[in-house]
Amino acid sequence: MDNRPIGVFDSGLGGLTVVRELRKILPNENIVYFGDTGRVPYGTRSRSTITRYTMQDIAFLKSKDVKMIVVACGTASSVLTKELTSKIDIPITGVIQPAAQSAASLSQSGTIGVIGTTATIRSGAYGKAIHAINPTFRVVGKDCPLFVPLVENGMIEKDNEITSLTAKMYLKIIKDEKVDTLILGCTHYPLIYDIINEIMDYSAVLIDPGKETAHYVQSYLTANGMLNGESSETANIHFYVSDTPSGFESTAHIFLGEDISGCIEQIDIENLTQSEI
Amino acid sequence: MDNRPIGVFDSGLGGLTVVRELRKILPNENIVYFGDTGRVPYGTRSRSTITRYTMQDIAFLKSKDVKMIVVACGTASSVLTKELTSKIDIPITGVIQPAAQSAASLSQSGTIGVIGTTATIRSGAYGKAIHAINPTFRVVGKDCPLFVPLVENGMIEKDNEITSLTAKMYLKIIKDEKVDTLILGCTHYPLIYDIINEIMDYSAVLIDPGKETAHYVQSYLTANGMLNGESSETANIHFYVSDTPSGFESTAHIFLGEDISGCIEQIDIENLTQSEI
Repeated sequence: MDNRPIGVFDSGLGGLTVVRELRKILPNENIVYFGDTGRVPYGTRSRSTITRYTMQDIAFLKSKDVKMIVVACGTASSVLTKELTSKIDIPITGVIQPAAQSAASLSQSGTIGVIGTTATIRSGAYGKAIHAINPTFRVVGKDCPLFVPLVENGMIEKDNEITSLTAKMYLKIIKDEKVDTLILGCTHYPLIYDIINEIMDYSAVLIDPGKETAHYVQSYLTANGMLNGESSETANIHFYVSDTPSGFESTAHIFLGEDISGCIEQIDIENLTQSEI
Repeated sequence: MDNRPIGVFDSGLGGLTVVRELRKILPNENIVYFGDTGRVPYGTRSRSTITRYTMQDIAFLKSKDVKMIVVACGTASSVLTKELTSKIDIPITGVIQPAAQSAASLSQSGTIGVIGTTATIRSGAYGKAIHAINPTFRVVGKDCPLFVPLVENGMIEKDNEITSLTAKMYLKIIKDEKVDTLILGCTHYPLIYDIINEIMDYSAVLIDPGKETAHYVQSYLTANGMLNGESSETANIHFYVSDTPSGFESTAHIFLGEDISGCIEQIDIENLTQSEI
């Protein structure tokens, strides 16, 4: 038994979709969440900047005595090389490996699609993870940079014309390549699952990396005797953000599926962790 | 005569539309441009964060011995109070005052529209500037948060269906209020001037704050004997960015109207200016 919290971070709000999945299947666990709202988005930045931010975020969560770290951000996960993770002395997972595992086991045709931010697609991280499992798979990637702002502006209803047109534009190449499995490689995309599914003519299995990652965390904690022994009644989430909490508080429920209030703290991520990196 | 450069900064690329206007009417001037690409966008952040970033950007430009500072970012301009500018001992202008002056002098009906980022509209800065000129004017504001990502993803052709639909959604309230003058209160918006003009049924004069600001700079430098005495052949622009230069270099031409290369330098804005703030 290990009653320390699970640490989760994201460039902003999107990682809350991973927290939502964790809460569903591991209701007893305490969670510390860091949303880097002062430096969001990561997905349009350079690899070196994303790596620096990611290592700072990990250092912050480590300072909160977490038992495991979940990198709930496709972009940050895409820069997490083995070399980097070997420097971190507690269990850590990104969202890429669990999603790649699931896609590889589900695909019948061997052609897997991946959509994500520009940085995630440019990194080729999903392709590398899938090819490490099975080098014969064909992986088709497409960046969809407008999906994040569309979701963050609430344009998520199934009949939203603007989001549907945007999805049609981005997904054309994915449809043309006849993928049978499509990884929604950014935490925001599951919120427009229905739109993506419709534009794909329901012809591909959509993989939500947040859901797959939550399952991986559950199996890791179980296998290593690290589940929280206390009941769900005492379980809590503590939120930290790097911009003022008000914007986070008002939008978080879209991603988390429940209201949050009173437990959001602002930190100065640049200066807090400088000495630790 | 004053041969020192003009300092211009923006949260990212948008301020290059102001540089373009400056180059058109003041071809002899040297320019130092800082694009805070490592922390873009400002428009969705809290006022306190925007103020901190803005003061850091100003401190950086001052370290480059500029003769005047142009805050070429609607959002950063919106936090520039008299109290803040009084701390800066060189001439400085945002984009709001020149645009408000122009709108106030052009409006016949007295109903002026303002569109901009969420932070700019929330600040009410354009309304305050217009009311200081004439308190009887009615100012109708609307934030258009999707315009920046649409422009940055190149969705700027006049017949772009997605951008047109988005403009129709945002501008409905502006049209309903029958404004006769509309301030494009974000440096990105002039790039979709034609789309906005069409959706407005050509019924309002569109004000480009970048253009108005360039005119103000010209008149200020002229009046104070601060123009550059050298010819345009020796005039140069030096670019600084806070993320890696490659992304900036590849997109800058959309905003600047000319290619740039070889003179872009990356700086660490958080740590460079910490001691000076």
